[in-house]
Amino acid sequence: MERPRHQGMAKNTYMRWRLPLVCLLWEAAMIVLFGVFVRFGAEADAHWEEEKREMNLTSDIENDFYFRYPSFQDVHVMIFVGFGFLMTFLKRYGFGAVGFNFLLAAFGIQWALLMQGWFHSFKDGKILIGVENLINADFCVGSVCIAFGAILGKTSPIQLLVMTLFQVTLFSVNEYILLNLLHVKDAGGSMTIHTFGAYFGLTVTRVLYRPNLEQSKDKQGSVYHSDLFAMIGTLYLWMYWPSFNSAISDHGDAQHRSAINTYCSLAACVLTTMAFSSMLQKKGKLDMVHIQNATLAGGVAVGTSAEMMLTPYGSLIVGSISGIVSTVGYVYFTPFLESRLHIQDTCGIHNLHAMPGLIGGIVGAITAAAATEDVYGKEGFIKAFDFTGVYRTRTPSIQGGFQAAGIVVSLLMAFAGGAIVGGILKLPIWGDAAAENCFEDDVYWEVPEDEESDAYHMHNPDKPASP
Amino acid sequence: MERPRHQGMAKNTYMRWRLPLVCLLWEAAMIVLFGVFVRFGAEADAHWEEEKREMNLTSDIENDFYFRYPSFQDVHVMIFVGFGFLMTFLKRYGFGAVGFNFLLAAFGIQWALLMQGWFHSFKDGKILIGVENLINADFCVGSVCIAFGAILGKTSPIQLLVMTLFQVTLFSVNEYILLNLLHVKDAGGSMTIHTFGAYFGLTVTRVLYRPNLEQSKDKQGSVYHSDLFAMIGTLYLWMYWPSFNSAISDHGDAQHRSAINTYCSLAACVLTTMAFSSMLQKKGKLDMVHIQNATLAGGVAVGTSAEMMLTPYGSLIVGSISGIVSTVGYVYFTPFLESRLHIQDTCGIHNLHAMPGLIGGIVGAITAAAATEDVYGKEGFIKAFDFTGVYRTRTPSIQGGFQAAGIVVSLLMAFAGGAIVGGILKLPIWGDAAAENCFEDDVYWEVPEDEESDAYHMHNPDKPASP
Amino acid sequence: MERPRHQGMAKNTYMRWRLPLVCLLWEAAMIVLFGVFVRFGAEADAHWEEEKREMNLTSDIENDFYFRYPSFQDVHVMIFVGFGFLMTFLKRYGFGAVGFNFLLAAFGIQWALLMQGWFHSFKDGKILIGVENLINADFCVGSVCIAFGAILGKTSPIQLLVMTLFQVTLFSVNEYILLNLLHVKDAGGSMTIHTFGAYFGLTVTRVLYRPNLEQSKDKQGSVYHSDLFAMIGTLYLWMYWPSFNSAISDHGDAQHRSAINTYCSLAACVLTTMAFSSMLQKKGKLDMVHIQNATLAGGVAVGTSAEMMLTPYGSLIVGSISGIVSTVGYVYFTPFLESRLHIQDTCGIHNLHAMPGLIGGIVGAITAAAATEDVYGKEGFIKAFDFTGVYRTRTPSIQGGFQAAGIVVSLLMAFAGGAIVGGILKLPIWGDAAAENCFEDDVYWEVPEDEESDAYHMHNPDKPASP
Repeated sequence: MERPRHQGMAKNTYMRWRLPLVCLLWEAAMIVLFGVFVRFGAEADAHWEEEKREMNLTSDIENDFYFRYPSFQDVHVMIFVGFGFLMTFLKRYGFGAVGFNFLLAAFGIQWALLMQGWFHSFKDGKILIGVENLINADFCVGSVCIAFGAILGKTSPIQLLVMTLFQVTLFSVNEYILLNLLHVKDAGGSMTIHTFGAYFGLTVTRVLYRPNLEQSKDKQGSVYHSDLFAMIGTLYLWMYWPSFNSAISDHGDAQHRSAINTYCSLAACVLTTMAFSSMLQKKGKLDMVHIQNATLAGGVAVGTSAEMMLTPYGSLIVGSISGIVSTVGYVYFTPFLESRLHIQDTCGIHNLHAMPGLIGGIVGAITAAAATEDVYGKEGFIKAFDFTGVYRTRTPSIQGGFQAAGIVVSLLMAFAGGAIVGGILKLPIWGDAAAENCFEDDVYWEVPEDEESDAYHMHNPDKPASP
Repeated sequence: MERPRHQGMAKNTYMRWRLPLVCLLWEAAMIVLFGVFVRFGAEADAHWEEEKREMNLTSDIENDFYFRYPSFQDVHVMIFVGFGFLMTFLKRYGFGAVGFNFLLAAFGIQWALLMQGWFHSFKDGKILIGVENLINADFCVGSVCIAFGAILGKTSPIQLLVMTLFQVTLFSVNEYILLNLLHVKDAGGSMTIHTFGAYFGLTVTRVLYRPNLEQSKDKQGSVYHSDLFAMIGTLYLWMYWPSFNSAISDHGDAQHRSAINTYCSLAACVLTTMAFSSMLQKKGKLDMVHIQNATLAGGVAVGTSAEMMLTPYGSLIVGSISGIVSTVGYVYFTPFLESRLHIQDTCGIHNLHAMPGLIGGIVGAITAAAATEDVYGKEGFIKAFDFTGVYRTRTPSIQGGFQAAGIVVSLLMAFAGGAIVGGILKLPIWGDAAAENCFEDDVYWEVPEDEESDAYHMHNPDKPASP
Repeated sequence: MERPRHQGMAKNTYMRWRLPLVCLLWEAAMIVLFGVFVRFGAEADAHWEEEKREMNLTSDIENDFYFRYPSFQDVHVMIFVGFGFLMTFLKRYGFGAVGFNFLLAAFGIQWALLMQGWFHSFKDGKILIGVENLINADFCVGSVCIAFGAILGKTSPIQLLVMTLFQVTLFSVNEYILLNLLHVKDAGGSMTIHTFGAYFGLTVTRVLYRPNLEQSKDKQGSVYHSDLFAMIGTLYLWMYWPSFNSAISDHGDAQHRSAINTYCSLAACVLTTMAFSSMLQKKGKLDMVHIQNATLAGGVAVGTSAEMMLTPYGSLIVGSISGIVSTVGYVYFTPFLESRLHIQDTCGIHNLHAMPGLIGGIVGAITAAAATEDVYGKEGFIKAFDFTGVYRTRTPSIQGGFQAAGIVVSLLMAFAGGAIVGGILKLPIWGDAAAENCFEDDVYWEVPEDEESDAYHMHNPDKPASP
């Protein structure tokens, strides 16, 4: 068993002082900034009884906690178990997949609470947080988990933390432009989370291009049980995606509708993925890579429109198409991206998030442009698109235009941000591994000796060979 | 390592055109039918604000979404992770277990939304759906997942899709007869889901009897880690079963009571299962097959009665008995069914679903027959059994009789339906594998080479042996 | 592969009659006691319609079920999947970890419903249960799961059941003293669950000290995939901890606040754990033991104070400190406890539950003592600490004193109870394994032959070695 002769060959991957320093300094910064800025919102504050009277609420059940907490927990599972385990498919990178995802997400949600708080929940010098902020912080970190998928196995934990710092910042700016300046609807984040996150990650991995990556080719595959671990991630993402797309929609029908549309889209997506996975393989066998990933494209592709009156059959159509696009992407685009454009995309986020994210943005723009008072009802129409205040004269077609503009802005932010952050990550100070040590947990983790029987064989077979 | 010499020996398992064709045509049909029939129900429609006024609701929290969505997500997890991973216990059929379960359930929920919609949510030519429809679709598919357990490892994905198509149809008819014509209560589906699903699956596997199945005997067992994967399925089914049995009960006390009864029944079931698992084994050791399956019988066995005033101690009794019956079934009945009745039941669904389902139906009938206004309260009595309209004169003992009739109808539908569908599946056009290739993922899946160290040994040890 | 030559060497581990007897007798006792005592509470009883009128509730959504059921399910997952899988890290004790945890928890929740019911829900000779009782039963069992962590791999299932019986009893007494006599706040159980459970378990394992445990040293480690299984447990505990700490808090702001504080504390804890894990290892590599455990200390450490106005930055501070203390504990204290104090702590519960539990108790006392009407609002202040009735004159500083007293009482109960129960478990009648057979599933479980390829090698390599 050729264990890599990593550890300070060409590169210094020694983390002992660098990683602790970054973690501790940044956590200290979080504490200071939270101390200065973050306080409980009215619904989580002990003054709630007074607040309740002021808001004229008769029951504690009207607290936003009860509208959103179950969805929050589902989203939380998606970020930590969903993304974490989805990436355990590599045979020797399970610790890194789950563990680094854990690390970057735990840091990212803190920084996102601040960044998003300054933009959206800032009042009298304080950021007031409640369950909706927690969901949004998880969403923001979701875009980092997506980008992580592109560079999985090729970066040090410090690089991931640096990327998280910058990406969360840029995410918040982009989100502010879309939601507040363009007044765009994007509850499930097709644009803000998936399009932005994926193209950001793809740009970063392009900048970090490693010409000799085939040296670790043998570790880029899966083994039987690592594929099953990855299916845990897949299924939790798939099952809870209705919660993801509905988590921050308006109370009542909008949350309800988002969940139904997403449920339908995802169901359709599974069938077209299976169909194309079999069709595009000579022997007609199904490929776990497709099942693990492309089945989720349906959730991404209704991220913007799920809370609109997309209708169940509309969702089936969108889901069907996105499953096809995503599977085709794995078979044809990913090799092309690597060989021609030098974009090494470990998890294929271009297929699972980038293209379906674009579809999602476009479907959202069309659905918005096609909205009528007849379909939504007079009140429902205004509420669905928040056509109030300065936006009360906006028409559906104009809204559709702004939605489309949101896609373009997200793409530009992703390319520009990814290029800059990629450049920063390229500095030779972050401790990334040499090409032949990529996709190998042993570089940054204490790895136990293999299964006892294997360990036994590791020492033995060579000996009897020379009696 | 003797890899099977499958692939087109006696049988043609080539899926390349057949599987895509079935998936794509059926998904297209779903899109058309959804387009014609399926719309949002009032609580998911953008007209909800008007609806709210009409229904005299003061708050969005009264939307059915908030009563049922958390339970829906739990049920969703049970169908996809619960059933999917429960069946990963086989050493070389993990991809098929999780993947085919994913495929059939994703198709099944779409078809169930239509079938159940026509029977139960049809209004002015449209099927109006909300969160309760999603739960019911998942329930319906649950019965297919159960049947899948009997034929696990012996069928092609196309056969599973064909079975799903028919079984969902028959399920909906049976459910309509029970709930609407017999006016039977069965919120947790002891009869409609478990009894029907299990006897349907057992009949199908009987028709598909394979005399030479011992040729793949070596693959019918588990390995250490596959048993742990299966425990993920077991635990999620066990933990979320209170949500399963309460998901579509009436708002308020009925949902609350169902959850408590199920919690108690399942707890008791674990102890009797452990007791009999140890008692029935010569060396007194526990058998993972029992722990993985029989511990769940308690949830099945209170499926009908959980929302009734079964009482916590009643639940303990039912749970205790069902754990015993189920464990005894694994030790004595399963071998008997196979050798004498030629019923090859891969997962032992006869023990986990069929017998406990019957117990559940009977307990439900008795509990209904024993109901009194004293125990339920005057209003509670009418509400619990919906003794309104044409049923307002029905007495508990008559209700008990109808409940019992529901068991019989479910059995008859299962046997008749299973025989017909089994006959269809026996046609030699669906691409099932030869007996020696059963329980082997390699037939329908791209399977990665084994653990690197294993792969290494596979080639080496033989060589040094002959220096 | 040296399979242990266990089974009745020095010790008789034969379970065939003993385990079934204990399980069945105890389950029978549960049925009788439930029959005599346990009934549905008003919100789960069919008389709910009348109750609703009496309580002046206008909607079913006011049923406590809808306030707490989602949190209950999260807690349920933590107990069965969280604790169960967290302990699967051992290479050959996965069945015992998940299976025995399942067994003891299933028994424990029944006994806890009774014990806690007698103390807290007893009315007119009956224990009236609802969803809050289910949560509390799970909580109580949580303390047993913690203690199980200390003796993991060294005890028979009967010993675990005996320990559960006694520990649940003592837990309930201790909880009654703290909550009812001292009027202490401890919603997340830093004192009642973690401090008590951990020191109880540590005392038990001290009494059961095995001098020759190094005989099974080779089985005390993990393998690659067992570490990934353990991460499932870790992540579910980590993600759902906000539900744990908020599950039984007051409706409204208190639940909301608890969730936010816990979320913040846990996020910070991950960063300091990673920092110290790397810092304390010569090569700077991360250790999965720390990631699996110390990242959770932040949840334990805000267990008492989460529902108070700890504030988000306060939570970050507490989480940061507890991550450091816990990681340092794994590196320095655990070896010390074993070599000097003869405390063999398999899972390191001293680092994950004992020390963070103490921190949690102390932080709770300080936060309570520092409370002011200004911060909480007049009403909020009284509500948060329940300063009503005989307690209406209690001041924050006095409350802080009582909180501190709660820590001391919990410690004393744990030491005294642990010593007695340890003594009972030391009797040579319970069937525990010999030292060389510890941490080995084969003693109490039917274990499948290893991976087929391994099995193949097990028989072969020895042969070719001697040509």
